[in-house]
Amino acid sequence: MAGMSVGTLVLLRHGESVWNAENLFTGWVDVDLSERGEAEARRGGHLLSESGLLPDVLHTSLQRRAIRTAQLALDACDRLWIPVHRSWRINERHYGSLQGKNKKQIREEFGDEQFMIWRRSYDTPPPPIADDDKWSQVGEARYAALPPELVPRTECLKDVVGRALPYWYDAIVPDLQAGRTVLVSAHGNSLRALVKHLDQISEEEIVGLNIPTGIPLRYDLDLATMRPVTPGGEYLDPEAAAASIAAVANQGR
Amino acid sequence: MAGMSVGTLVLLRHGESVWNAENLFTGWVDVDLSERGEAEARRGGHLLSESGLLPDVLHTSLQRRAIRTAQLALDACDRLWIPVHRSWRINERHYGSLQGKNKKQIREEFGDEQFMIWRRSYDTPPPPIADDDKWSQVGEARYAALPPELVPRTECLKDVVGRALPYWYDAIVPDLQAGRTVLVSAHGNSLRALVKHLDQISEEEIVGLNIPTGIPLRYDLDLATMRPVTPGGEYLDPEAAAASIAAVANQGR
Repeated sequence: MAGMSVGTLVLLRHGESVWNAENLFTGWVDVDLSERGEAEARRGGHLLSESGLLPDVLHTSLQRRAIRTAQLALDACDRLWIPVHRSWRINERHYGSLQGKNKKQIREEFGDEQFMIWRRSYDTPPPPIADDDKWSQVGEARYAALPPELVPRTECLKDVVGRALPYWYDAIVPDLQAGRTVLVSAHGNSLRALVKHLDQISEEEIVGLNIPTGIPLRYDLDLATMRPVTPGGEYLDPEAAAASIAAVANQGR
Repeated sequence: MAGMSVGTLVLLRHGESVWNAENLFTGWVDVDLSERGEAEARRGGHLLSESGLLPDVLHTSLQRRAIRTAQLALDACDRLWIPVHRSWRINERHYGSLQGKNKKQIREEFGDEQFMIWRRSYDTPPPPIADDDKWSQVGEARYAALPPELVPRTECLKDVVGRALPYWYDAIVPDLQAGRTVLVSAHGNSLRALVKHLDQISEEEIVGLNIPTGIPLRYDLDLATMRPVTPGGEYLDPEAAAASIAAVANQGR
């Protein structure tokens, strides 16, 4: 590492949302944090300050669960004042017509195999949501400034990689190159998309990768290549992260 | 008004802080909102949504009481996702060596006349704060990126006008010219500085002008001149604003 310039990126998945707790597909629906999710966010901020890992700049999605997670975490580590940038490009995956539906009911209606394809296949999206569906984002004020073809009706993880990487290259990388410690507060699938890129994970292997909520994941990146010094990064609370990942892996059983 | 292009600016003074409640000079000390201040902020957000006055972009100071006021207000009107810009230029006036001191004690120690000069004179600042004073901002992480001569040791309102106007012209006016409804979440004196400029208030008259906490103040501006269509603007809750202004006027008696 002699002479290597290293930048620090911190990924933070939002805390539990009200719909996580109710076992509904959420996607682009703008659901708030549960009380447990708020506590997870604050704890994430305490982990940042205990580690001396204080962000210089924040990037968030346009969704309140990621925005509020960042607010609570930065409040806890006294960094509310740092610059903020937001983009739909690091929103959660759009779950198409599954948005607002109960996961257990969908599984019973369509069977285990179809359910797992919709949840985890790299390149098969769920059926698109109708524009007049209650849970469609067409016409929502926060996306009004986007050309309509950019507002998704459904997405697979491959789609998320495709729309998130331009933001990675154009907005996040320049902050890292300027020597800033960058916090990205986002979602299970937009963070999986970034991690897939950073760690060069295959389409097959990314299916099994889960990111726990509320535990900051630190990547030190070689600024010459923008690749991790330590593949997979380091969770600020590795034990809690391992326990949470094991719990998610067992969730579908 | 035929053919006049009008932009909308909303000024929001942060809700009551913990030190407001304790009657201490605050200035650049980074004090949090009191519970009452949090409620004021939320109510400010409800006033925005009830009036259909939804901000497209937010400008805040670097101080947590203004940042959190904006967060709570924007949460209440579902605009957490709008772009955010922050600057020390719309921070509260720096109160010099008075920061952290009790207002009543200062008044008793120095007498009514000196007290009023420090509080309200346009161009006489309080004595500068020592760099090693507990309540100095020298060395604070949030100002570390500023050249040291920009971090004030004391300020009068004239100083605040001088440092706030470049931000008005360079950051806020372009957003208004782009057709955005602009929310500025800031402080008693940085907002007085903006209002002095907008309404062309004299140095003598600005002394008597107070802005109530938590009540959005709307200015419709002629975009050709950047002057208010209605001088003084319009509070979204004029009765509460009038009552609060009267209470502040009586505070020193």
